[in-house]
Amino acid sequence: MADRADTPVGELLHSQLVRLYPICRSITGPGVRETLSLIGEHIPLSVTEVPSGEPVLDWHVPKEWTIRDAWVADASGNRVIDFQKHNLHIVSYSRPVHTRMSLSELKPHLHSDPSNPEWIPYRTGYYAENWGFCLPHRDLEAMQEGEYEVVVDATLEDGSLTYAECVIPGQTTDEILLSAHICHPSLANDNLSSIVVATELARRLLKGPQPQHTIRVLFIPATIGAITWLARNAATVDRVKHGLVLANLGDPGAIHYKKSRRDDTEINRAVRLVIQDQPDHKMLEFEPYGYDERQFCSPGFDLPMGCFSRTPYSRFPEYHTSADNPEFVRPEALEDSLTRLEKVIDILERDKKFMNLNPKGEPMLGRRGLYDAIGGRSDSKEQQMALLWVLNYSDGEHSLLDIAERSQLGFDRVAHAAEILRQHGLLVVAS
Amino acid sequence: MADRADTPVGELLHSQLVRLYPICRSITGPGVRETLSLIGEHIPLSVTEVPSGEPVLDWHVPKEWTIRDAWVADASGNRVIDFQKHNLHIVSYSRPVHTRMSLSELKPHLHSDPSNPEWIPYRTGYYAENWGFCLPHRDLEAMQEGEYEVVVDATLEDGSLTYAECVIPGQTTDEILLSAHICHPSLANDNLSSIVVATELARRLLKGPQPQHTIRVLFIPATIGAITWLARNAATVDRVKHGLVLANLGDPGAIHYKKSRRDDTEINRAVRLVIQDQPDHKMLEFEPYGYDERQFCSPGFDLPMGCFSRTPYSRFPEYHTSADNPEFVRPEALEDSLTRLEKVIDILERDKKFMNLNPKGEPMLGRRGLYDAIGGRSDSKEQQMALLWVLNYSDGEHSLLDIAERSQLGFDRVAHAAEILRQHGLLVVAS
Amino acid sequence: MADRADTPVGELLHSQLVRLYPICRSITGPGVRETLSLIGEHIPLSVTEVPSGEPVLDWHVPKEWTIRDAWVADASGNRVIDFQKHNLHIVSYSRPVHTRMSLSELKPHLHSDPSNPEWIPYRTGYYAENWGFCLPHRDLEAMQEGEYEVVVDATLEDGSLTYAECVIPGQTTDEILLSAHICHPSLANDNLSSIVVATELARRLLKGPQPQHTIRVLFIPATIGAITWLARNAATVDRVKHGLVLANLGDPGAIHYKKSRRDDTEINRAVRLVIQDQPDHKMLEFEPYGYDERQFCSPGFDLPMGCFSRTPYSRFPEYHTSADNPEFVRPEALEDSLTRLEKVIDILERDKKFMNLNPKGEPMLGRRGLYDAIGGRSDSKEQQMALLWVLNYSDGEHSLLDIAERSQLGFDRVAHAAEILRQHGLLVVAS
Repeated sequence: MADRADTPVGELLHSQLVRLYPICRSITGPGVRETLSLIGEHIPLSVTEVPSGEPVLDWHVPKEWTIRDAWVADASGNRVIDFQKHNLHIVSYSRPVHTRMSLSELKPHLHSDPSNPEWIPYRTGYYAENWGFCLPHRDLEAMQEGEYEVVVDATLEDGSLTYAECVIPGQTTDEILLSAHICHPSLANDNLSSIVVATELARRLLKGPQPQHTIRVLFIPATIGAITWLARNAATVDRVKHGLVLANLGDPGAIHYKKSRRDDTEINRAVRLVIQDQPDHKMLEFEPYGYDERQFCSPGFDLPMGCFSRTPYSRFPEYHTSADNPEFVRPEALEDSLTRLEKVIDILERDKKFMNLNPKGEPMLGRRGLYDAIGGRSDSKEQQMALLWVLNYSDGEHSLLDIAERSQLGFDRVAHAAEILRQHGLLVVAS
Repeated sequence: MADRADTPVGELLHSQLVRLYPICRSITGPGVRETLSLIGEHIPLSVTEVPSGEPVLDWHVPKEWTIRDAWVADASGNRVIDFQKHNLHIVSYSRPVHTRMSLSELKPHLHSDPSNPEWIPYRTGYYAENWGFCLPHRDLEAMQEGEYEVVVDATLEDGSLTYAECVIPGQTTDEILLSAHICHPSLANDNLSSIVVATELARRLLKGPQPQHTIRVLFIPATIGAITWLARNAATVDRVKHGLVLANLGDPGAIHYKKSRRDDTEINRAVRLVIQDQPDHKMLEFEPYGYDERQFCSPGFDLPMGCFSRTPYSRFPEYHTSADNPEFVRPEALEDSLTRLEKVIDILERDKKFMNLNPKGEPMLGRRGLYDAIGGRSDSKEQQMALLWVLNYSDGEHSLLDIAERSQLGFDRVAHAAEILRQHGLLVVAS
Repeated sequence: MADRADTPVGELLHSQLVRLYPICRSITGPGVRETLSLIGEHIPLSVTEVPSGEPVLDWHVPKEWTIRDAWVADASGNRVIDFQKHNLHIVSYSRPVHTRMSLSELKPHLHSDPSNPEWIPYRTGYYAENWGFCLPHRDLEAMQEGEYEVVVDATLEDGSLTYAECVIPGQTTDEILLSAHICHPSLANDNLSSIVVATELARRLLKGPQPQHTIRVLFIPATIGAITWLARNAATVDRVKHGLVLANLGDPGAIHYKKSRRDDTEINRAVRLVIQDQPDHKMLEFEPYGYDERQFCSPGFDLPMGCFSRTPYSRFPEYHTSADNPEFVRPEALEDSLTRLEKVIDILERDKKFMNLNPKGEPMLGRRGLYDAIGGRSDSKEQQMALLWVLNYSDGEHSLLDIAERSQLGFDRVAHAAEILRQHGLLVVAS
């Protein structure tokens, strides 16, 4: 905690990411549990284990995968591919194997990327009951003809799928849902970055005053985790009034926000307000491909949730390779992502509609000490304008978010003006 | 028919156009009947004769015009203007004349275009009971003072107005209406191009499986023909669910589509999808001037019909002159127009709304062999995306056309994805 | 009146402005009355006096201010600041003072603008019960240490607030409301320009045929005048169907129109049509800051009123300084403002919806002499088009303004076409 006080938050989050990086995660198994255990050092987590085989929507919970070791050794016994050296060497969910084979027999099981010959690609084989290894293309090309020993020391058996939730209880059951996927092995931006940002966000919210909304942070395996969580919470999922899928929050790119399937949701508008000052930010239209918004925004749920990223998946060359390592993630990007997410939540928490109690003509602000009287602030002119905007548009139809959008004065100034006017008896909350 | 198999369709259509070119058409008369007779060699036509004088909406069917010969001869008896050399020399609907006059008396009856001095302009005098001749400006300037013999060997008498329909009966009485005007004499792009394209389109539709919609192709004189057809079919015209006026389909320009008066009709959207890949294509706003969309989109009918053209009227210099001849029309442009019209009809025929039967979360495609399993196609990635788009938007609200517009994946891919999903029991047609 | 016939109207208005310039106006007091008296030489005015202290909406009518003389004199008795030389030297609403003080005591009461050191700034102190002087910064810097005599020979006492109305009675009680503020002392563009333009506009309307709308022109002190008028007319203010606040109508800039709070009002659309041909014109979004649209568009009234200006307040350097003098105002700008306002009123007066009585197909125009028969006009092609536009869109849904917007043919042509069609029995006014 001394550290915490002295260290910039970006550095702190980056050091948490470094600690999580070596764990070999997948959609099930001990890597997920170990990850949740480290997250649990910072925030209280409710962990759920769902048994293999349980039907979840159109799917079933898959077998649990435990990987202990894996290698390909040449005739001399030298490990030319070695899981101990990098988690990405093993295709995730590879079934157990212990055999010998020629290079030509082996090759269909080897994956490399000729366009990035120094990097190990990331591959998965969920539901395939197959096995494979990944390696730099440079290394693949150096492999000699001959017989190789192939070992995958793993189990793929009934067990359970693990996910966790951190809930910050609100004054209402209306929910803000944040979700980060935790199934990727040693990949830093995708998605350890979001795990550490979401953890810190939850930690801060827990320390603050009780929010209006109940805020729920999910740490789940991608796709099957979202499907499992939705299956188990289908009856109450309409409590979710706003939500974000978090992904790739640590790269140096600008925020790219993919809008929720429903147009013109408050979450879309709140994010736009929060990111519009950032050069090169983008508001992307919804499409049913990407991260877990695919599930949350499936037509049977259609939750008002977007996907909040910096550079989107597959648009950075390091995506799904060993080059997506902790060096690729910037502490200042983690901090920027955290700060903007806090602002988004702040807007969702504070947005409401007011009624101007003196709607005919402007009320006389001077008599109430409100005319050029918000001194001390260097931005008093904008603050004065905000008073007029809030008075004019507080007609029961326009929310603070509407007024912030129209006035371009910023949500904070607008909300501050509303609070001052409310204190002076000029506004009430619209029923 | 051996020809048909071997010849590119554009060449075939062009040769039909060449055969139609010499006929002297007008809004009534034998030229129209001869034209319909040639069309009738390719497709079955139902021909209607409407007697002169019949009231049709705010109009009356005009007298029938028969032109046999016409000339202006100089004092030596040389024909300096000779209808036998070009149909355009006579002002359409000229009344019979046989007289002699000086050049100065004659000149008010002579029409030329100084800006294109080699070309004969096209002029009409419907409802004017006047007469006139058209000639190249170069020739006009060469005419010497002196007495001229003027002969218009024509009759302008009660008879009938002729139009024809080719109907492809559909599974429903919902109609797609296509209309081409047949009143222009030797003008190739405007509108023999559309006559041959519409004929071939009807021929192909008749050979294919029975369509959903009843498809009606009109061959009618412009304005008075459309008015006459509307007058006689006013009681059933609301069967028309989509329609196109066809004009100028053979010039080398890009498609210019003028939208229907009603905004956001399916026909507008289907055409947009079909032409948007063409460089320089244009979507034009409706305006109440142009071809027979003026009548079909008059406010009392307001049919969902646009005007499908390549270069619009009066935007090519050859428009309404002798330079709009068969050389001006390109076989490849005829084929491109035909192909795109077929695609438009295909979209109208196949567009529908589906319901995703597994709307909560994505269904597990792998289990059904649908994940990366549409192999063989080189575009399997886009086809995979199309599955996700169709699943996500098949909520009973969005049609395939909506989904094709949003996804930018093309109507074919989207419709193909829907068919696959339907076969796998994942979709049903929305009621 | 001989003058009036011979002099360009811009010159005439400029000479009226020059006559009004020397009067020292404020929000109350004799300057306002003298101004109204001069306006009353041109048009009949109904003048209202509202006693100090009367509650008006959230405000009270302030005391009346009468300024007779004011100066700052040095030890030698030389007036270094002298109200007799320029009205702007005295801070408006300064309370009476007669005292002596050192330069350093005096300085907090002296206002200058270092960025325009030759100009006297304009300052007011309403509701402050303070006093002050304004002077060129150059003069301030030249002031020597020493004792100064300070005299404000004014009264600030119960009296009344004065405003005036000129009403042109219409055939209906639906109102067009125009409003110009009359509270500024010697400032020419802001707002003597609007006073003279509004006066001439009213004069012309009174001379013309009785309008459809009752047209009311207000000459009122800014803010408190608008509030007072609204308070006294709250019960009937919903008669206002269209309105404009007039400000800065004499500078050489292009028209900048700030839209009414309600979107898509007829006034917004009529002004757009009238100004769109002017290079650099601007349509500005509503914001609740500016001139008296702040009051008229407060949410409890929300009148359909925009603000019609040339260069908006504070966007010209001369704004609220002694450089906003008659030389800054251009006769041709006054005339252009007047002409465009007349066109706006003309559109509001003539706009209506018609029904095409022959909505099925186009009516036969030739039979009625309407085809190419509007000869004499050099723009007969556009006029012919206007007939077709009006026929097609006169479906009871679209007004002439709608048709003018869509067709881009100009309101005059469209209205002229409607009148011709009505005379020929093809249109009736939609009920």
